[in-house]
Amino acid sequence: MPIITLTTDFGLTDSYVGAMKGVILGLCPDARLVDLSHDIAAQNVTQAAYVLAAAAPYFPAGTIHLAVVDPGVGGERWPLVVQTGRALCVGPDNGLFSPFLTEPGACAWALDRPEFWLPQVSRTFHGRDIFAPVAAHLARGVLPGQMGQLISDPVLLPLTEPVRHPDGHVTGQVIYADRFGNLITNVPAAWVAAGRWRVEIAGQQIAGIRAAYADAQRGELLALVSSGGTVEVAVREGSAAARLGVGVGAAVDFWPVEGAISP
Amino acid sequence: MPIITLTTDFGLTDSYVGAMKGVILGLCPDARLVDLSHDIAAQNVTQAAYVLAAAAPYFPAGTIHLAVVDPGVGGERWPLVVQTGRALCVGPDNGLFSPFLTEPGACAWALDRPEFWLPQVSRTFHGRDIFAPVAAHLARGVLPGQMGQLISDPVLLPLTEPVRHPDGHVTGQVIYADRFGNLITNVPAAWVAAGRWRVEIAGQQIAGIRAAYADAQRGELLALVSSGGTVEVAVREGSAAARLGVGVGAAVDFWPVEGAISP
Amino acid sequence: MPIITLTTDFGLTDSYVGAMKGVILGLCPDARLVDLSHDIAAQNVTQAAYVLAAAAPYFPAGTIHLAVVDPGVGGERWPLVVQTGRALCVGPDNGLFSPFLTEPGACAWALDRPEFWLPQVSRTFHGRDIFAPVAAHLARGVLPGQMGQLISDPVLLPLTEPVRHPDGHVTGQVIYADRFGNLITNVPAAWVAAGRWRVEIAGQQIAGIRAAYADAQRGELLALVSSGGTVEVAVREGSAAARLGVGVGAAVDFWPVEGAISP
Repeated sequence: MPIITLTTDFGLTDSYVGAMKGVILGLCPDARLVDLSHDIAAQNVTQAAYVLAAAAPYFPAGTIHLAVVDPGVGGERWPLVVQTGRALCVGPDNGLFSPFLTEPGACAWALDRPEFWLPQVSRTFHGRDIFAPVAAHLARGVLPGQMGQLISDPVLLPLTEPVRHPDGHVTGQVIYADRFGNLITNVPAAWVAAGRWRVEIAGQQIAGIRAAYADAQRGELLALVSSGGTVEVAVREGSAAARLGVGVGAAVDFWPVEGAISP
Repeated sequence: MPIITLTTDFGLTDSYVGAMKGVILGLCPDARLVDLSHDIAAQNVTQAAYVLAAAAPYFPAGTIHLAVVDPGVGGERWPLVVQTGRALCVGPDNGLFSPFLTEPGACAWALDRPEFWLPQVSRTFHGRDIFAPVAAHLARGVLPGQMGQLISDPVLLPLTEPVRHPDGHVTGQVIYADRFGNLITNVPAAWVAAGRWRVEIAGQQIAGIRAAYADAQRGELLALVSSGGTVEVAVREGSAAARLGVGVGAAVDFWPVEGAISP
Repeated sequence: MPIITLTTDFGLTDSYVGAMKGVILGLCPDARLVDLSHDIAAQNVTQAAYVLAAAAPYFPAGTIHLAVVDPGVGGERWPLVVQTGRALCVGPDNGLFSPFLTEPGACAWALDRPEFWLPQVSRTFHGRDIFAPVAAHLARGVLPGQMGQLISDPVLLPLTEPVRHPDGHVTGQVIYADRFGNLITNVPAAWVAAGRWRVEIAGQQIAGIRAAYADAQRGELLALVSSGGTVEVAVREGSAAARLGVGVGAAVDFWPVEGAISP
């Protein structure tokens, strides 16, 4: 049974997600549908890209990821299929699949064959009229190349990369704030695994990087290794986002502590 | 595998939706369960009727729609099954299925055979005790007529129909506001497809009816053809509901523009 | 097809629930996944225990309940499997499964066999790295005893029991407030089924215990038999929680009315 995940900014109140699922099940009755998130902030392509890329590695090879955060719907952006060594993605060509497109060997096709879409295509809801039927056809074994043209220049989101400075200090950014108010940074935990570090965010100093929430007191601000493998700033059983008053885009600095002994 | 969709005002925090799904899977283990919405405003039968009717046409023939927004639970309203040429519906007889009941050939049965319900029926949760088991029995092939009596007078919601006036102008209403703040009207796009029109809502004037959000500037108020085929008032990458301060029930007027040339 | 239910405080916006489902489907492709709730308040083990225990009895025998509300993740609490005559539970040993553990014949195992976990185990997300794979292995038929050690002292939540006083009056507490603002108490409806009663909550008096919302006027405060079999305080088509300004933990008193005749 092919798995199709769904990621949108449609919310769970309106009929939009249901309509997409109806279209898929009509074309591929044995598809397994798994919701990743439908509460992406309206039109926030960057957030959707992060959530999808964070969950996707945990799905079996061959999973199809249908993602629709699509401020350009009805305009000139292409409908897209992306294929990597492990997954297929379907959605708009607006950067949503950047983390997949930058994998070695990734390919992208611009969809231009309406016989794989619904007979009537609106100009406001391609999730239902183009992307859902294409995902269902992929699940039935249709190849991306049968549905579109290979392209070499899909849209990529600008990268926000952490930096290791010559003096040893590291600068990064908060790239996601989760439900608990945990602030996930883009700094790999491996960069700051050896030695001792002082973390600076929003004018606050945090001593050291810990391994678990349970290594802090309730209500204490701490830096730790996130479940995604980067450094995260958190408050045990509280919200770092609320405590510090910052969110996505906030700068984070890591300073090596003088006299520290590498393990 | 039979498909059962679910639409309720139960929310996703409490145990109610889970209990319904457990009951269904106990009676019909291979049912495919698809959530349409559980965030219908409490007791808002009209909203539930709209959401269900908007999603249902995209599901395969034979789909069973279980919907429970039921302010009269435990009182005198009947439990109901509705059958159309494409779908079966299960829920309270309070108008929730009006768009199905007004299809040609639709039939309705008042459920009066407790052997198809849970052994113990509470007077506060018929979704779990009556409607979920009936949906499961329908999915297993039990016919509506085995579970109840055909009735000729199911409850219908009052209709809010748009009007074409003798002077050519058209009046309608907002019948739904979605997550994005898009205001969906009941005026068919076909009524205003020819010629040029001025749209008036909440004291604001909008020139013309466009085909896509992408035909407007970011932040611009526009009228366009909604994905459901009626006219919608929107703000590109913004909220028309917030901008105009209106919602469901707001009047919308369409005025033909002098000197316009029909295509 | 084995059923696995999911209950967490992860919300539906982030990638966490999706990652857990991906892990399960990778190990047990034919598992049926049913969300109970992901909107448990952050770290609220008591609320999760209530929601899970309220929905579980309606699932078929053999259902696996995966529940992760885990403030102690990464600390010294054990990962746990609980088995009762009807169900299996997987999650942290923090009281979440108290209603299952107190069933006659229930057994608990502390999980200590990492070969049934993901190869890399983070210290912040055992839901994905330990509990999801263990649930999938249970669904494939692995026995709890193959994955851990039987223990005799799993953590139990403190009980909040109602009391029948010598003078006949009954005291209880609100143990849950649902989406509608209904206040569910821990007083069995059977205790107050005979005779007439006056209910006191938040300084308000309610005469009698009714059978259904429909037995009250719109907007009226009433006490009635909840769908879980205990007494509930509600406002018909309104919110008792908002009206009375109380929630979980509020005291409720039941006074037998003088001169009442038992049925």
